[in-house]
Amino acid sequence: MKNIGFIGLGIMGGPMAANLARAGHSVVGYDLGPDRVERLTDAGGRGAADLAEAVAGADVVITMLPDSPDVEGVALGPDGIMRQARPGSLYIDMSTVRPETGRRLAQAGAVTGVHVLDAPVSGGEPGAVEGRLSIMVGGAEEDFATAMPLFEVLGATIVHVGPAGAGQTVKAANQLVVGGVYALVAEALVLLEASGVDGKTGLDVLAGGLAGSRILDLKRESMVNREFAPGFRVDLHHKDMGIALAAAREAGVALPMTGLVAQVMAAARAQGYGSLDHSALLKVIENLSGKDQA
Amino acid sequence: MKNIGFIGLGIMGGPMAANLARAGHSVVGYDLGPDRVERLTDAGGRGAADLAEAVAGADVVITMLPDSPDVEGVALGPDGIMRQARPGSLYIDMSTVRPETGRRLAQAGAVTGVHVLDAPVSGGEPGAVEGRLSIMVGGAEEDFATAMPLFEVLGATIVHVGPAGAGQTVKAANQLVVGGVYALVAEALVLLEASGVDGKTGLDVLAGGLAGSRILDLKRESMVNREFAPGFRVDLHHKDMGIALAAAREAGVALPMTGLVAQVMAAARAQGYGSLDHSALLKVIENLSGKDQA
Amino acid sequence: MKNIGFIGLGIMGGPMAANLARAGHSVVGYDLGPDRVERLTDAGGRGAADLAEAVAGADVVITMLPDSPDVEGVALGPDGIMRQARPGSLYIDMSTVRPETGRRLAQAGAVTGVHVLDAPVSGGEPGAVEGRLSIMVGGAEEDFATAMPLFEVLGATIVHVGPAGAGQTVKAANQLVVGGVYALVAEALVLLEASGVDGKTGLDVLAGGLAGSRILDLKRESMVNREFAPGFRVDLHHKDMGIALAAAREAGVALPMTGLVAQVMAAARAQGYGSLDHSALLKVIENLSGKDQA
Amino acid sequence: MKNIGFIGLGIMGGPMAANLARAGHSVVGYDLGPDRVERLTDAGGRGAADLAEAVAGADVVITMLPDSPDVEGVALGPDGIMRQARPGSLYIDMSTVRPETGRRLAQAGAVTGVHVLDAPVSGGEPGAVEGRLSIMVGGAEEDFATAMPLFEVLGATIVHVGPAGAGQTVKAANQLVVGGVYALVAEALVLLEASGVDGKTGLDVLAGGLAGSRILDLKRESMVNREFAPGFRVDLHHKDMGIALAAAREAGVALPMTGLVAQVMAAARAQGYGSLDHSALLKVIENLSGKDQA
Repeated sequence: MKNIGFIGLGIMGGPMAANLARAGHSVVGYDLGPDRVERLTDAGGRGAADLAEAVAGADVVITMLPDSPDVEGVALGPDGIMRQARPGSLYIDMSTVRPETGRRLAQAGAVTGVHVLDAPVSGGEPGAVEGRLSIMVGGAEEDFATAMPLFEVLGATIVHVGPAGAGQTVKAANQLVVGGVYALVAEALVLLEASGVDGKTGLDVLAGGLAGSRILDLKRESMVNREFAPGFRVDLHHKDMGIALAAAREAGVALPMTGLVAQVMAAARAQGYGSLDHSALLKVIENLSGKDQA
Repeated sequence: MKNIGFIGLGIMGGPMAANLARAGHSVVGYDLGPDRVERLTDAGGRGAADLAEAVAGADVVITMLPDSPDVEGVALGPDGIMRQARPGSLYIDMSTVRPETGRRLAQAGAVTGVHVLDAPVSGGEPGAVEGRLSIMVGGAEEDFATAMPLFEVLGATIVHVGPAGAGQTVKAANQLVVGGVYALVAEALVLLEASGVDGKTGLDVLAGGLAGSRILDLKRESMVNREFAPGFRVDLHHKDMGIALAAAREAGVALPMTGLVAQVMAAARAQGYGSLDHSALLKVIENLSGKDQA
Repeated sequence: MKNIGFIGLGIMGGPMAANLARAGHSVVGYDLGPDRVERLTDAGGRGAADLAEAVAGADVVITMLPDSPDVEGVALGPDGIMRQARPGSLYIDMSTVRPETGRRLAQAGAVTGVHVLDAPVSGGEPGAVEGRLSIMVGGAEEDFATAMPLFEVLGATIVHVGPAGAGQTVKAANQLVVGGVYALVAEALVLLEASGVDGKTGLDVLAGGLAGSRILDLKRESMVNREFAPGFRVDLHHKDMGIALAAAREAGVALPMTGLVAQVMAAARAQGYGSLDHSALLKVIENLSGKDQA
Repeated sequence: MKNIGFIGLGIMGGPMAANLARAGHSVVGYDLGPDRVERLTDAGGRGAADLAEAVAGADVVITMLPDSPDVEGVALGPDGIMRQARPGSLYIDMSTVRPETGRRLAQAGAVTGVHVLDAPVSGGEPGAVEGRLSIMVGGAEEDFATAMPLFEVLGATIVHVGPAGAGQTVKAANQLVVGGVYALVAEALVLLEASGVDGKTGLDVLAGGLAGSRILDLKRESMVNREFAPGFRVDLHHKDMGIALAAAREAGVALPMTGLVAQVMAAARAQGYGSLDHSALLKVIENLSGKDQA
């Protein structure tokens, strides 16, 4: 049993914190929206009045927040986690943020004596609720070992991918490939249909060969039917493409496909599809050729 | 047993014609390079001195040629297949060419009374040798039925995807997705390695989630190891990207990702990797960031 | 005074042929649309019943046709210009076509003894009517000298840019830059307006600095006002982007910006703006962000 | 005569502060590198020991710093300009930063009673030394009027382009067009030379027509000769492309050309050309086709 401070109880963080409480840990949660604590208290945890209360006495602090500035504010600010957490305790950031943020957290931890992991997840709300997330972890091997019992509550696939920031880098790489494959499948479908070929028939063939992918397996039918209920929202993937470009900039590499995918995703948001599933990239590609069916 | 005229006995056509002969058909082959007929004669077929001899008396004529102008020259020229083939016979073009070429052949067939199918394949030389190609077929349902016994000799996955030209459209869609996924995986790998993450570890994670694909399954290890023995050559995929862009132009659609993939593939060829496997797109993405390991 | 056969009397060819007739040359024109000959006959030329009549006895044959297949059909076909023109005469193709077509014409001329120049133009219908075209000429220096008196009737800026095909290459390079600058100005304008900055004020600043261009000078006011009366039509520039990509393929180079511009131009056409001025690329960029004002 | 605190005395800020001192203003400069103050003291100004000393008693505070975090740190931090400057005084940020930073400064000023302008410049080190910069100003009309006498010391072209942040938006728009035109000219030149056309001859033609631009006028000769002495360095333009993409993100627009230009610029930096002139994009385009002449 660990004393856990859990910061950020939103769509993902809420069920994650609740799962940790149900697994027998003592979880103290904190969120700017105080009504979000209910799911956690129902599961046996309790809410904190402020950040300091959540962090005080914790063996492990976990953050699950929207973006890099949120994490850096909460962790590195003058009254932040890094100054309040007990030396020797463990801080795990499970948000999806820039790799640079992961490295900054680790550097701060080296000063204050707090152990730090970056551990972004994939698998969406269902994965969070069911404790079946994929977790990509950057940081020291021994800290990964310490965190493993908690990760096993939260996820099904848990991989230590490298040093500080590496978890975020792998997540960024994942998101650029996912966004890109959606855009490619969208272009294939638009080409097929505009050429008078049945979209489903054509994509079925592609799914069976070297063009095959998890996305074609799971999403080709909904894409052909123009069903875009999320799933993973365009708004979030738009944020993640920004992270991927920032990661490329930090790493000093040029990624032309990623640069273009980021703009296609930005177009999806600008066209009003931000709350649809990211497969709605199809609508951008359709609109580009004046073929929107909406 | 059918009388088959087979035009084009190269890397793909050679073993395909031989397989048809071994299956008991009477195959007369023709190629501009006369030494290419040997594989067919070993299998029980025979060579023709010219195109006319291969076409004369054939129930079915098959072409397997490099590009659209080759097919149009052989099929639509003044002494071409369409004028020499027996009315009522079947002409199957199994080359990978522009959808427009497929439609032109069908239009010519409507005039001369020759039935026409476009039936490009994927699966490469091993698929041709082993009779395990994937075959995408455009044309009339009854002609597809007629051809089926021959297709079953040549391939393992055989799909009738639509009217004349549809086979080529599906092949074009397949190639744009395949080329694009290679480029995306290359960008992911370059980002991972430049960020200090082990490439194999990172791609393993991607392969297990929504970013997963046949290409990641089959090629991530060789890409990480920079092994680029073909497989399917860059030069051929470069040709196919030209077909995909031509297909988009014919269909009146705009495909920005495809447009960029075509230039990345052109760069692979321009940098001297034309005879490497198409996974060598990785070298273009590496070179772009000055990270070529060669 | 020269005997000139002029093939292709459309929007551009019509006034060009008439100008040559008015300048005192004996011009025999031919077009598939026989009513197009009137402008020429009004200017003192005459119409021919067929291609052969236009070519017979000509010192100089000029073609002004839509695309590469048209030129190759008329020039290289079994009854084409190359077989009918007098050895020692001059054939000038002033169409905008692929550089490869220019080189093929020159190779055919080397066989038949006909001198060949490729001489595409810019300047549009007004330039054709007023005899103020820009003419980019590829071919032998002495043939350029022979043609100069005719070019001086048709154009104001006349440059010999290199060997056979070079005229077409320069035209292709010109069109890729023009298309690209329009797309960039469109992106600048969309960014300015979406950020709450007056478009005209912002573009005025850009026009005065290193971002300045002929396009900003001539077109920024009409773009800000969303006035897209041609000028040079999207449909024609779409054809020209296809030529630019073909030229890159022939030259063995990869041009990523050009690849993307071609798709933006294709989108303009697919969205129904084919008959508007090419500055209507702005509408594609606006639509991409859901900001179409139409 | 104004009392001016000038923060940031680098390549640009140093000569700007000196020019203000020479024009008769009382300039107190501050820079983290204390040896940078010499140019200012030579011109009659003096150095400050810290930020507070430079800001104390100033009528106008000016910052000229590398990037958004620098400006936000110096201006918005707990001991920053906004807390130390006299209410009613004027703060002008002349750095090139994100439009969002410009708006944040203005919002802070609304709280503290400090008037704020964003006023990025173009024209490079020569423009700074000679007092001939172009200055794009965002903020209130009356603050622009107050600042005008100082701007007239520093620049030759001074334009009030809109409300807070507008100056940065116009600068971002300028930089995306400049970067894009360089990339287009590079592609044109690579196409010309690979096709056997003399690059200078071809670009001369382009410069004289609708493809003409300030960049072709000023830089085509040096580009043809592969002379890349700065001028404006790739590293800085790389930073500016990041600002342009951030500005697009803030404005909610998708800019595909800009997205690609940013990656071409990133490639220039990654290939080791960061300290060359931004026209060195040519080397990226050459390398992409294996045609690097270096």
